[in-house]
Amino acid sequence: MTKEAHLLLAHGSRDPEWRLPFEILAADLKAIHPERPIRLCYLELWHPMLTDAIQEEYGRGIRNFRISPLFWSRGRHLREDLPRLVDAVMIPGMHIRIDGPLGLNEEVLRAALTALT
Amino acid sequence: MTKEAHLLLAHGSRDPEWRLPFEILAADLKAIHPERPIRLCYLELWHPMLTDAIQEEYGRGIRNFRISPLFWSRGRHLREDLPRLVDAVMIPGMHIRIDGPLGLNEEVLRAALTALT
Repeated sequence: MTKEAHLLLAHGSRDPEWRLPFEILAADLKAIHPERPIRLCYLELWHPMLTDAIQEEYGRGIRNFRISPLFWSRGRHLREDLPRLVDAVMIPGMHIRIDGPLGLNEEVLRAALTALT
Repeated sequence: MTKEAHLLLAHGSRDPEWRLPFEILAADLKAIHPERPIRLCYLELWHPMLTDAIQEEYGRGIRNFRISPLFWSRGRHLREDLPRLVDAVMIPGMHIRIDGPLGLNEEVLRAALTALT
């Protein structure tokens, strides 16, 4: 079976309080799937950066990657910055699939609506 | 009964695609509670701005406000910018309560985890 690294991609901030929910999500997901290589990484301002995380996992023999953007929606970061970074790090034999933004997920939107009701 | 305006506060972007999930949330919430004054507003870059929305609802006789930040977490915007804006617009007799960030809501976090699993 080909192992796939799951990269949870947050925007990034130097503020530890801002990073908290993303760290909770990554820790919870690792607890559910301890066998999976799951990495929290960032687009900017904090480390590991996305490309560093990909290169590190590649060095460990991983060739397949899933990127889940922990963003509310699709803006310039996901339309322009993310494809540019993925193009820059891509090597023949590497496979990268990219999820839609977490905030557009139907269940997440429904939970958000419940929280606001 | 004292009416309360419910202000859904997103960060803001000039990008219509970025604003989409927030517009969906606001429209869905209005459909569930057509009797409530529900307003989608922004901290920066798009209109209506938070303070304009508060002043407009105040002009319609509303004195109680609930602000729900449509943010993943608490960073500088919610710790510093939001209280500063609320202080600037506050008038005696006005009541403003502020929710925690939507992304730290337990149900939203759980739905996000399910989406990533």
